[in-house]
Amino acid sequence: VTALEPRAPDFEARTRASFSRQAMMATLGVTADRVAPGEVELSMPFDARFTQQHGFLHAGAIASGLDTACGFAAFTLMPEDAGVLTVEFKLSLLAPGRGQRFRFSGRVVKPGRTLVFTEATAHATDGGSERLIATMSATMMAVTGRDDVKG
Amino acid sequence: VTALEPRAPDFEARTRASFSRQAMMATLGVTADRVAPGEVELSMPFDARFTQQHGFLHAGAIASGLDTACGFAAFTLMPEDAGVLTVEFKLSLLAPGRGQRFRFSGRVVKPGRTLVFTEATAHATDGGSERLIATMSATMMAVTGRDDVKG
Amino acid sequence: VTALEPRAPDFEARTRASFSRQAMMATLGVTADRVAPGEVELSMPFDARFTQQHGFLHAGAIASGLDTACGFAAFTLMPEDAGVLTVEFKLSLLAPGRGQRFRFSGRVVKPGRTLVFTEATAHATDGGSERLIATMSATMMAVTGRDDVKG
Amino acid sequence: VTALEPRAPDFEARTRASFSRQAMMATLGVTADRVAPGEVELSMPFDARFTQQHGFLHAGAIASGLDTACGFAAFTLMPEDAGVLTVEFKLSLLAPGRGQRFRFSGRVVKPGRTLVFTEATAHATDGGSERLIATMSATMMAVTGRDDVKG
Repeated sequence: VTALEPRAPDFEARTRASFSRQAMMATLGVTADRVAPGEVELSMPFDARFTQQHGFLHAGAIASGLDTACGFAAFTLMPEDAGVLTVEFKLSLLAPGRGQRFRFSGRVVKPGRTLVFTEATAHATDGGSERLIATMSATMMAVTGRDDVKG
Repeated sequence: VTALEPRAPDFEARTRASFSRQAMMATLGVTADRVAPGEVELSMPFDARFTQQHGFLHAGAIASGLDTACGFAAFTLMPEDAGVLTVEFKLSLLAPGRGQRFRFSGRVVKPGRTLVFTEATAHATDGGSERLIATMSATMMAVTGRDDVKG
Repeated sequence: VTALEPRAPDFEARTRASFSRQAMMATLGVTADRVAPGEVELSMPFDARFTQQHGFLHAGAIASGLDTACGFAAFTLMPEDAGVLTVEFKLSLLAPGRGQRFRFSGRVVKPGRTLVFTEATAHATDGGSERLIATMSATMMAVTGRDDVKG
Repeated sequence: VTALEPRAPDFEARTRASFSRQAMMATLGVTADRVAPGEVELSMPFDARFTQQHGFLHAGAIASGLDTACGFAAFTLMPEDAGVLTVEFKLSLLAPGRGQRFRFSGRVVKPGRTLVFTEATAHATDGGSERLIATMSATMMAVTGRDDVKG
């Protein structure tokens, strides 16, 4: 039994079901490529609707993917009656969001009953090569007993 | 002459033109309600396409509005040949993104030749009342001499 | 009754007593100049023992003062059986820590039962003038029922 | 030639000389255990003078060690005429600072001519075991042509 043991036996189905309820992910074209205990990997194609003024993927789109990767990485470890909310995150933009596809990998650094510390990286595939374009450090919170924050 | 004196005489037109090139803002339905030296105010209506799994406005949408408010607040003070890029930001989510309209107010805390320190707040109008739902602290960078980062 | 109403009637004495148990504050020469509901102001003299390689006050000393100002600002609003722990903070260094005296002002932005969102500013007095040298955004946590985190 | 190639041939001696000028490190009892291109490892013993009110190592002391580890990790890659300044950092406190010795490991995530993105971890040795107690994400800036920020 490691620290990253899921508490809900059907953690993957539960996480994928919650992901499918995120309209923002469908809007951005983000898919859930991998769901494991304490780890979630998402990806999306470049889409000109989500760019900033120089034609790069907007920091807000990158933040959306990374925040969701962190949130669901935390969610995989939560009990069945808990919902997850983001407390805060910091996003560092190492390189412009230029590429054809973007990959968002989130993982739990330190699980906890109430707070879960997570980190994530964003990589862009540009032509044949992939490079690290952003990192996130995020604090997630397990919320129980609230009807408006479930699953 | 204060520290928040714009260097480009047509700073407002220049900022609004750059804002209008941000496809992400058009996609989210964000409008530029106010552009002043070192200050930018944006707003958007609630839209179910940009929500997370509990129906609140997604943190990534809030980040998009706040990052843009900070970036353009910095941009109002930059010389004509400079473009602005986000270095990093931290977003704190004080309350769920519940409401009919969201307002993003960015301001320059400390201008500089290369780096500009900014802060922003997000307020949600829910029924008749408005409340603070998020704060951002962001570092912006003035970029010159790069063809892919202009205006 | 406002949101920043203290829950413990003797909040000031309680906060000052806890502050006096912070050895780090005594070591740095920090004093608690003001304790009000949701607000704490601290200050310290310049001391060459706490400088970085260029002779400025070290970012870690500035972080110490600001983190403590935020933590005790949160603590003023907590119930009698709670202790406060820092979850995370972001520190932005707007200007070098040059001066004869440093002032750290922390305040609660959003109180909560478990998490308290706070912000702080650091000002340096250099000769006759004072200037803003740093800002902090910090998340604090109220901890109850733990023998090692009390008061 | 990798991205983490030092530009100054005597980067290690230069970094150790700059470290030895940080009075804060001597005050805290921090030693530079390892200096490599883009990586610096520091450590310090527990010292009751640097604790918070519950007897744990103060977040400001942890921040001091991590900020310095990040700053010098960046410094190892800078040209001879550059000095390093911290732009901002975020510190996440995963566990209380309890232990006999603390280790601070900083590394460069993305080097750059002006800005260098870094990350660091803090581990505490408590009895026979070591555990991760904090993570930092920091932006460093190379400063040239300023007499007050050299080496």
